[in-house]
Amino acid sequence: MVQTRAEQMVARLQDMQAAVPDIEASAVVSVDGLVIASALPADTEEDRVSAMSAAMLSLGERIAKELGRGTVEQVYIKGDNGYVVLTAVGEEAVLTVLARKEGKLGLIFLEMRRAAKDLTNML
Amino acid sequence: MVQTRAEQMVARLQDMQAAVPDIEASAVVSVDGLVIASALPADTEEDRVSAMSAAMLSLGERIAKELGRGTVEQVYIKGDNGYVVLTAVGEEAVLTVLARKEGKLGLIFLEMRRAAKDLTNML
Repeated sequence: MVQTRAEQMVARLQDMQAAVPDIEASAVVSVDGLVIASALPADTEEDRVSAMSAAMLSLGERIAKELGRGTVEQVYIKGDNGYVVLTAVGEEAVLTVLARKEGKLGLIFLEMRRAAKDLTNML
Repeated sequence: MVQTRAEQMVARLQDMQAAVPDIEASAVVSVDGLVIASALPADTEEDRVSAMSAAMLSLGERIAKELGRGTVEQVYIKGDNGYVVLTAVGEEAVLTVLARKEGKLGLIFLEMRRAAKDLTNML
């Protein structure tokens, strides 16, 4: 069976979540805040994730520029109940991940970089 | 000579920067975006750092809440030219750090946590 591009991307997201079970949700979102592919639990609203991703990326870009940090590669927020991590996927999209607070950040970053590389090639 | 509270905080920021030379600038900023203490190089505008810190914290709080991550403890942005990292200092302020891209994130986080603990006691 031939997979569509969207199915390939979802499969890649699911692989990432299988590799790091503390990643509970993930999505590829365009820079204008539209979902390209997602692997979210039933109780997570896709629109909310995509809107928040776009807002975070946009502010991240502005701050990085204003404070002389260059082009944004990654943004992360740590709450007392877990993480939100964004990584660039090419120039047109971003990979957003929601992770449990028990997750090891180094491992999450590593798997996200690998997934982002593969996803860039699929876009 | 007795140090004022502000002088103590600046001295603590300078200690942190001495411990991790890849931290090039740091400031303690109130949640409403006013500088409480700073150790910034001459070419870094204090107002810009404080405004960006408040914006980042505010969006971080909203995103963490919307996506079920709890109360914000840390926000970070990685650009291709370095990092911006924010860590909570008590409930009323935030420690903002600008670091070079060569900086080791684990070391930056460690020293920031130590400084934030001391700064909380000074506030």
